[in-house]
Amino acid sequence: MSADWFRRRFLPRGPLPAPRPPRPRTSPVPYRRPRFLRGSGSSSGTADASRRPDARPVRSPVRGRSLPWNAGYAEIINAEKSEFNEDQAACGKLCIRRCEFGVEEDQEWQTLCSEEFLTGHYWALFDGHGGPAAAILAANTLHSCLRRQLEAVVEGMVATQPPMHLSGCCVCPSDPQFVEEKGIRTEDLVIGALESAFQECDEVIGRELEASGQVGGCTALVAVSLKGKLYVANAGDSRAILVRRDEVRPLSSEFTPETERQRIQQLAFIYPELLAGEFTRLEFPRRLKGDDLGQKVLFRDHHMSGWSYKCVEKSDLKYPLIHGQGRQARLLGTLAVSRGLGDHQLRVLDTNIQLKPFLLSVPQVTVLNMDQLEPQEEDVVVMATDGLWDVLSNEQVAWLVRSFLLGNREDPHRFSELAKMLIRSTQGTDDSPIQEGQVSYDDVSVFVIPLHHQGQGHSSR
Amino acid sequence: MSADWFRRRFLPRGPLPAPRPPRPRTSPVPYRRPRFLRGSGSSSGTADASRRPDARPVRSPVRGRSLPWNAGYAEIINAEKSEFNEDQAACGKLCIRRCEFGVEEDQEWQTLCSEEFLTGHYWALFDGHGGPAAAILAANTLHSCLRRQLEAVVEGMVATQPPMHLSGCCVCPSDPQFVEEKGIRTEDLVIGALESAFQECDEVIGRELEASGQVGGCTALVAVSLKGKLYVANAGDSRAILVRRDEVRPLSSEFTPETERQRIQQLAFIYPELLAGEFTRLEFPRRLKGDDLGQKVLFRDHHMSGWSYKCVEKSDLKYPLIHGQGRQARLLGTLAVSRGLGDHQLRVLDTNIQLKPFLLSVPQVTVLNMDQLEPQEEDVVVMATDGLWDVLSNEQVAWLVRSFLLGNREDPHRFSELAKMLIRSTQGTDDSPIQEGQVSYDDVSVFVIPLHHQGQGHSSR
Repeated sequence: MSADWFRRRFLPRGPLPAPRPPRPRTSPVPYRRPRFLRGSGSSSGTADASRRPDARPVRSPVRGRSLPWNAGYAEIINAEKSEFNEDQAACGKLCIRRCEFGVEEDQEWQTLCSEEFLTGHYWALFDGHGGPAAAILAANTLHSCLRRQLEAVVEGMVATQPPMHLSGCCVCPSDPQFVEEKGIRTEDLVIGALESAFQECDEVIGRELEASGQVGGCTALVAVSLKGKLYVANAGDSRAILVRRDEVRPLSSEFTPETERQRIQQLAFIYPELLAGEFTRLEFPRRLKGDDLGQKVLFRDHHMSGWSYKCVEKSDLKYPLIHGQGRQARLLGTLAVSRGLGDHQLRVLDTNIQLKPFLLSVPQVTVLNMDQLEPQEEDVVVMATDGLWDVLSNEQVAWLVRSFLLGNREDPHRFSELAKMLIRSTQGTDDSPIQEGQVSYDDVSVFVIPLHHQGQGHSSR
Repeated sequence: MSADWFRRRFLPRGPLPAPRPPRPRTSPVPYRRPRFLRGSGSSSGTADASRRPDARPVRSPVRGRSLPWNAGYAEIINAEKSEFNEDQAACGKLCIRRCEFGVEEDQEWQTLCSEEFLTGHYWALFDGHGGPAAAILAANTLHSCLRRQLEAVVEGMVATQPPMHLSGCCVCPSDPQFVEEKGIRTEDLVIGALESAFQECDEVIGRELEASGQVGGCTALVAVSLKGKLYVANAGDSRAILVRRDEVRPLSSEFTPETERQRIQQLAFIYPELLAGEFTRLEFPRRLKGDDLGQKVLFRDHHMSGWSYKCVEKSDLKYPLIHGQGRQARLLGTLAVSRGLGDHQLRVLDTNIQLKPFLLSVPQVTVLNMDQLEPQEEDVVVMATDGLWDVLSNEQVAWLVRSFLLGNREDPHRFSELAKMLIRSTQGTDDSPIQEGQVSYDDVSVFVIPLHHQGQGHSSR
């Protein structure tokens, strides 16, 4: 993506063109649940009349179908918020082939061996909005994008430190020293590959949805194990935490209009035409009204962490670029997340104002060094969509995890049972630690990934 | 500053105008050392022939002149790097007057009492570059800007929580609830005032330097005590740390082309014309050369935390927007810091490419709650320009502080002596913990601010 492209795409000169009518050329993305749920029950995961909170089924893989690292998974559909479960999940083995540098003069890359060179594992959650299509496409696609991006740099991951040139041939004798001084490590290539894969997947989703005349977007939370490290990449408001006997460590942070206020306000400052005169980029404690005119009220602009007062002018009465607090915060009155995949066609209702320029598809990546961690018997990573975290805190989840695992040491299916129990805890059952009235009516999906005896050492061959 | 202003200022259409020749209208800013150093020695702080590292005098206030909170201060001029000591310092009492809301219909603000309403204290270090003028102007001006900004919001600082309206009159009965939900605290008004004061001071410096035909810029590190809290605001590569018996806590982080790479690269992505075709915004481990053409080399763009490989094109051979590592890293080959005051006229040598659009004057502010901290006898804040931190780590400084204070419990001038000792430690004297060859040849300035029995409770009246 270039700056020129950004301007052409989002800053048309002259009057804005009307949104293109959907032109179905390919068949719509069919609705489905994750493949690993096959055979796990009769429910198709679509709406039915009996969806009282306590009546919605909690689904998890059938006994005997094991997920990577014996991870547990469970999900529940929302309480009639939408026809479909807009969460999606994927997991599997990640097989990276090695591409070796050809000897031809044209210095093209060749796949000399099609066998796996590196293997890893992959778990992903996608929380869709505006329809299930984007999340389904992400679940079908992102792992392939990641595999491709990793294969493009895998040659650089062989050494302890990536070489300056992918060919390994130094142009300048001090190349290794420059790489060393910049502190570039193998894990930076995986982080870069994750960043590129999210962007590639976003482009694929944009093309596919346009071709099928569908709309929608999704968040993406991905965990990848590779060469003794666990990478957690997040774009959106899902969350992953590490739970150990005496530690609860967040492995991701949420990207919402509130947490990314300064970035979003700054873009509106640079390109005010993105707001089409309909919104104010300034933040106020509440939406202003006529009575506030001429008064000095609290406000924040893009460069401010603190607050100040400004004299209210007429333009301050416009609808705020970011409005509402906490779970109610919305970008352009429309979207609750500020990073994710898709949403290429999303516009503010009854306007031509686009959401996409304010959204990032690039994830934030954290790295867990499994060798240093020395995981113990009950150490797990819990990944879940926002439906879980809306009603349970990290500490409450950690408490549930620890007490469940301690009481179920012998059960080979305990991580799957734990995932189901976590889901049930969001539904206001008797043993749930959540406060009354804090039941989750959202789609909820959970992976529980046990770390003991996993991922240490390298699996390259 | 508006987006339009930014475009007019930095993105002229058509050929770039030649830089305006300096038109001295006012007399140049006279060189001086901080006022509180008067009478502290014969040295004027300018270059003289005897400036071997061990011969340069360490200056500190004369005995009997006490600084706020009995803080210690010391400085040393650089080893002939420049004619003048480009560091500057300021400290003093901060007297905030209360402005009360008038009863007139036009709702203008009136100063009803000119007496102090709130008092605080202020310590500031400015590290100049390109001449001493900007740092001197900042030392003369920033505290006045801050006082003015605080007085503009002081009425909002009276209550435990700032009111939605500065008048205190709610337009909407639930105003306090909105402020509460946004989590807006009194300290956010001080943070906002510091952010605005830095920007106001930057504008003053721009005007004054233009009027006097001078150039230059400076970093700014400020500590302010107010209502039981210590605020540390930083724009540049100076540093403040808290040293306690069993804790070393950074109170600031440095803003350099390296630490702000993504912000700087993103601006160049949005406005490629700022680079005038002379620089590449991409980061490589080293500057590329002709031999790299067509090869796949490590690189990073604005959206990447990780690294990837790209095929080198001709445009990648241009000089990098950010080049070099660590202390050698430079923005546009010119500047070692990415935040600060001044530099309005700074251009890349022999070009019209401006540095200013890439620089921020807004500081990052951290808050130390003195009541919660319960400072002990030897707890201090050490503020110093980069000359100190280039050769001493936080831990080394903490070790020097603790051992000095333990051994000098009875000396009423011990904080001043400690500041001098820290400066001497950068000069490679016998008792210095620095490694051989790591002597500082830079200007170095240090404040040591004791926290015991200070700043707790409020001094408003």
